[in-house]
Amino acid sequence: MQGKESLLFNLHPQLANDTVTLGTYGISKLLLMKDARYPWLILVPMRQGLTELHELTASDYDDVADAIRALSDKVKSLFQADKINVGMLGNLVPQLHIHIIARNQSDPAWPGPVWGQGKAVPYEDKALIQRIDLISNHLKLN
Amino acid sequence: MQGKESLLFNLHPQLANDTVTLGTYGISKLLLMKDARYPWLILVPMRQGLTELHELTASDYDDVADAIRALSDKVKSLFQADKINVGMLGNLVPQLHIHIIARNQSDPAWPGPVWGQGKAVPYEDKALIQRIDLISNHLKLN
Repeated sequence: MQGKESLLFNLHPQLANDTVTLGTYGISKLLLMKDARYPWLILVPMRQGLTELHELTASDYDDVADAIRALSDKVKSLFQADKINVGMLGNLVPQLHIHIIARNQSDPAWPGPVWGQGKAVPYEDKALIQRIDLISNHLKLN
Repeated sequence: MQGKESLLFNLHPQLANDTVTLGTYGISKLLLMKDARYPWLILVPMRQGLTELHELTASDYDDVADAIRALSDKVKSLFQADKINVGMLGNLVPQLHIHIIARNQSDPAWPGPVWGQGKAVPYEDKALIQRIDLISNHLKLN
């Protein structure tokens, strides 16, 4: 259940610019970063005006925590990742959002974090569509 | 309840070296990074051999998720932080651990992430004891 609050929700313009929307997952929008260097998902609870995880209501928090758990598991197997990185930073984009990134020892930022490392590498159109399809099918997104 | 599994748990030597133990919090050890640049907590579920959040059992996951929520809230107010950063990376230290860091716009890594930024600044002995006391009292640790 997304709840009526999702009707009042607007995605932050920076997130809208940097991602494509894969669908909804529980109470959150699920986004794919337009950066071909990593399979990089972002979960954005559709609750206006939140900046910190602990500002979610208890039931919304449970929904988001469950989503993080499920996505971490599914993305790790889908991309045969060496490690999943999960992060809630929000130092630059204040709207509450959760990064879930499939990391590999061969990726350009390994073993450091991905944030602030170099510039995003755009997907080729075909590769982007393939990746969206792959994730959407694996996660059974609507 | 920490459970009997906690008896089999050994803290990774790198985490043991870089932190002081504040106490236990649910099923986790709660550690303070020996880095005076940031109020930087680390939560380590006392479950041997885990590397990813989603490997926790459902009830252990709920315990850890609740701990993250409570600590994020309490640490933000205690240190009047501009932002809480939460991260599960584990690219260098494989043992599952969760970073909870109170960030301020005046801190040396702002607005970037703290990981991999410069060298840890040791606490003065007195400052370390004060910080441990402050956190322990605020969180009502045993």
